[in-house]
Amino acid sequence: MSNIHELSVTTGPIPGSRKVHLPGEQGVSVAMREILLTGGEPSMTVYDTSGPYTDEAARVDIRAGLPALRREWILARGDVEAYEGRVEKPEDNGLKPGQDATVPLFDRAGRKPLRARPGCRPTQLAYARQGLITPEMAYVAKREGVAPEFVRAEIAAGRAILPANPNHPESEPMIIGRNFLVKINANIGNSPIASDVGSEVDKLVWAIRWGADTVMDLSTGRYIHAVREWILRNSPVPIGTVPIYQALEKVNGKAEDLTWEIFRDTLIEQAEQGVDYVTIHAGLLLSHIPLTARRTTGIVSRGGSIMAKWCLSHHRESFLYERFDEICDLLAAYDVGISLGDGLRPGSIADANDEAQFAELKTLGELTERAWARDVQVMIEGPGHVPLHKIKQNMDLQLEWCHEAPFYTLGPLTTDIAPGYDHITSAIGAALIGSMGTAMLCYVTPKEHLGLPDRNDVREGVIAYKLAAHAADLAKGHPGAQDRDNALSKARFEFRWKDQFALSLDPEKAESFHDQTLPAAGAKLAHFCSMCGPQFCSMKISQDVRDAAQAAEQGLAAQAAEQGMAAKAAEFQESGGEIYHTVG
Amino acid sequence: MSNIHELSVTTGPIPGSRKVHLPGEQGVSVAMREILLTGGEPSMTVYDTSGPYTDEAARVDIRAGLPALRREWILARGDVEAYEGRVEKPEDNGLKPGQDATVPLFDRAGRKPLRARPGCRPTQLAYARQGLITPEMAYVAKREGVAPEFVRAEIAAGRAILPANPNHPESEPMIIGRNFLVKINANIGNSPIASDVGSEVDKLVWAIRWGADTVMDLSTGRYIHAVREWILRNSPVPIGTVPIYQALEKVNGKAEDLTWEIFRDTLIEQAEQGVDYVTIHAGLLLSHIPLTARRTTGIVSRGGSIMAKWCLSHHRESFLYERFDEICDLLAAYDVGISLGDGLRPGSIADANDEAQFAELKTLGELTERAWARDVQVMIEGPGHVPLHKIKQNMDLQLEWCHEAPFYTLGPLTTDIAPGYDHITSAIGAALIGSMGTAMLCYVTPKEHLGLPDRNDVREGVIAYKLAAHAADLAKGHPGAQDRDNALSKARFEFRWKDQFALSLDPEKAESFHDQTLPAAGAKLAHFCSMCGPQFCSMKISQDVRDAAQAAEQGLAAQAAEQGMAAKAAEFQESGGEIYHTVG
Repeated sequence: MSNIHELSVTTGPIPGSRKVHLPGEQGVSVAMREILLTGGEPSMTVYDTSGPYTDEAARVDIRAGLPALRREWILARGDVEAYEGRVEKPEDNGLKPGQDATVPLFDRAGRKPLRARPGCRPTQLAYARQGLITPEMAYVAKREGVAPEFVRAEIAAGRAILPANPNHPESEPMIIGRNFLVKINANIGNSPIASDVGSEVDKLVWAIRWGADTVMDLSTGRYIHAVREWILRNSPVPIGTVPIYQALEKVNGKAEDLTWEIFRDTLIEQAEQGVDYVTIHAGLLLSHIPLTARRTTGIVSRGGSIMAKWCLSHHRESFLYERFDEICDLLAAYDVGISLGDGLRPGSIADANDEAQFAELKTLGELTERAWARDVQVMIEGPGHVPLHKIKQNMDLQLEWCHEAPFYTLGPLTTDIAPGYDHITSAIGAALIGSMGTAMLCYVTPKEHLGLPDRNDVREGVIAYKLAAHAADLAKGHPGAQDRDNALSKARFEFRWKDQFALSLDPEKAESFHDQTLPAAGAKLAHFCSMCGPQFCSMKISQDVRDAAQAAEQGLAAQAAEQGMAAKAAEFQESGGEIYHTVG
Repeated sequence: MSNIHELSVTTGPIPGSRKVHLPGEQGVSVAMREILLTGGEPSMTVYDTSGPYTDEAARVDIRAGLPALRREWILARGDVEAYEGRVEKPEDNGLKPGQDATVPLFDRAGRKPLRARPGCRPTQLAYARQGLITPEMAYVAKREGVAPEFVRAEIAAGRAILPANPNHPESEPMIIGRNFLVKINANIGNSPIASDVGSEVDKLVWAIRWGADTVMDLSTGRYIHAVREWILRNSPVPIGTVPIYQALEKVNGKAEDLTWEIFRDTLIEQAEQGVDYVTIHAGLLLSHIPLTARRTTGIVSRGGSIMAKWCLSHHRESFLYERFDEICDLLAAYDVGISLGDGLRPGSIADANDEAQFAELKTLGELTERAWARDVQVMIEGPGHVPLHKIKQNMDLQLEWCHEAPFYTLGPLTTDIAPGYDHITSAIGAALIGSMGTAMLCYVTPKEHLGLPDRNDVREGVIAYKLAAHAADLAKGHPGAQDRDNALSKARFEFRWKDQFALSLDPEKAESFHDQTLPAAGAKLAHFCSMCGPQFCSMKISQDVRDAAQAAEQGLAAQAAEQGMAAKAAEFQESGGEIYHTVG
């Protein structure tokens, strides 16, 4: 195990950018990223998920955690109270009674959990329904460039969620809904085979540096509780989990030994720590299981397979389904959002859009209404493996059956035959389903199906999903989405290499790729690039042509069929034929 | 410059596969790849572009070139004749008169070029229209798993092309058309900045190893002729070029100095060498140029910008357009296919689907009919940079205006903001436009816009496009396309790791990614993987569940609401709860 005191995370600004804080309504100060351009171009301010880690003015201390940005807002509402909280148990970390942890533990410095005062439902959904615009909503509005009232209305309608557990006051508010920028989630988490405390915090900071909007901690094995605490205290983005994973650890991996009591206790444990949303596979019913018998890949969701095994072992209906209202009441007290898991999502092209999958989706729609009745924010998880022509049906049915609750899909992967490249097979599906209205895309790394992602895999996965989400934003005609494309393309046309890099999703890789062929500093000022060389650059020729074309625009149409061409040609050649260097 | 005698290319079978030769009609023997599986699974035979280089029985000698597979078929038709051919000139290689080449030259051993006998048009289109099924068509039919008559009919209708210059008898026939498997092209070629003779042949062999269906040699600078000879003599896939690039070299990079005579001579030079298809930017008209004046990125096609500059310099209509019928007559004599270039393709999201682009596309439709009138095979090049929601219009208009000639697109890239990842931004667009009917997808590497691709970039680009093409095949419901997905997913579900790797588009990367986390040989037999570890694998649990579900399938529906569940549960648990290890 690494020593957390030796832990280092990547800090410092994204090359070419600086952190700025812009004032929003209700006194909020919204962290954004300003990309600085050259040649007199105005700087461009973009959405930023990276938190204080990219802020040169911020002091980062993993042991202390991030500042509690939202604490005053939360307390000012007066609807939550601190309490002693659940007593930590050895099994929370996979330890036996009396066994000591061998990993460093985050020092909470006496901080107690918050939960709803009796009779209160301190959820953003409840506030929105009451007509209240919270500072969280004001923060989101500034980030997204929309009116705070629009944010409130979308949340009130259930079309968007703002995951914001009062016990995670470090988080910078963000929203997930199809009328906002498409978001992406990155999964991290240790496993019995590899990973440790320190590397998970590092992975978190790394994932948000490249643009992850939320992070799910999917840890299994030991020290789930301890790792999660480190992650939450240092995360500026909402953290999601799959609580059944930890519950299973508490019964030594025997699904049939799970009980409602253990699961409930785990939910409370995680809610008190500050988890912002939880995946609950409550839509997988006993009667759905036989529908999977003839599948090529059966049940591939871990949560789904656990619950299927529990149901079959006991020949009983899922306790997640039967206790769903209790789950909602519990989570409402902490404003933990529910991500309704798709335990029966297809794990192969062969199983896409089958009866099992859609039977569960229909149940998720029923559960959505039950959660909303208790003021719990809900999103719906979706597949998985789906060929391109079957993607639209997923979106259509989700919108119809789940009453426009936000859709949150894993990819989908559009073919099964490219392990090692599944960030790409799935970015294809993700971009398409995003363009149709999916609100958040769960990333897939190149290691999917093969191994555990390392730092480079996380980066590759996050960037692949950022570009897919952005492609979806463009396709949706999201206001302002194209500004960055336009700025980058203008920089490209004008050979402002440094600006191209700065405007890129991954400025470091863009610059390093350029430098592999043309490393000299002067090449970044050159009016050509390595693809064609100085004599033969289409961009350069095109610029030469441009003013000529502009000049011709007036005269040419009328004149094209007429005389005088030879004279004009001579004139153009006399002037050097290269007079149109419009670029500074 | 490297010494070609020291040149080595990658040979040997793709891991887990072997080369097989299957008999087709007319006595053809078709090279395919057989993927060998374990556990009693039948082997799977797949389309194979890699030529003799992956055939353990083949002797590879770059200096001798590949065997002339098609030579007898060509000569048997009696419609071509050998002739002395054009005299090679120093400027073909960018040399001054009297200057000697400093790179090794391929020894043609006296081989003379072939061209049509007077009055003959030895093109596959002419044969198809006459009702002839050539050995080339029979070869394609076997490769694609369709009837030879279907191949003939599609070529006759102009919906597909079979690029097969008689001077490139080394090529294994392949077809490009939307009722066949979606194909991909990889670009190689030196440039004034980097690359050399040897590395281009190596790149060719590397690109086809991973699945490139055709390769375009986009060399500029010196030794274009010499490099192309090495490539052609060693290529089992059709080779495409953009002749205007070489023509421009012959006038020292001055577009305005280009002449019809120089261009025509270059066409003959390349046709005699064996180029199978050429990009001709004949649809860019003088009157289109003003339409680009207000674009964000002007004209980004190199060929397009060259011709635009020529047109403006001379204030004359493009000689490619004016001489198009002559070009067709010339190319028909060698069955060189025309790829009608989109010189005005958009180079940014901002310029997608604009007036300039579509004005040219409409002209390409007119030129298609003119080429067909001369029995020349034609495909149409398409963009470029197009956001997701504007892709369909490209396909719809191309089909309508270009009379269903095959569409061949570069991506399209669905956003501009991810340089370094443009193989992914473009694979998204490629998969989508492929699913709509685009016949061939021109790859984009991670270095696009930034630098020259190295071997690894070529591999990344080719695999990204293979998976995009396959995703398109699945979406089109192409017969048999899903077989490989099903086989891989079955292997995955049954923990046949070696079979998963063998069935992957990139078996080496899949295996190496697996081994990074679980290097032990035993892990490849393990019924779990590193993502979840041995206790907690959804696939494993799912298999446990499967038989239970199958058993339950009969009884459960009727019984679900009734009694007896407790008894059945006890029975399941008594049996171990883990009895369903169906996997060998």
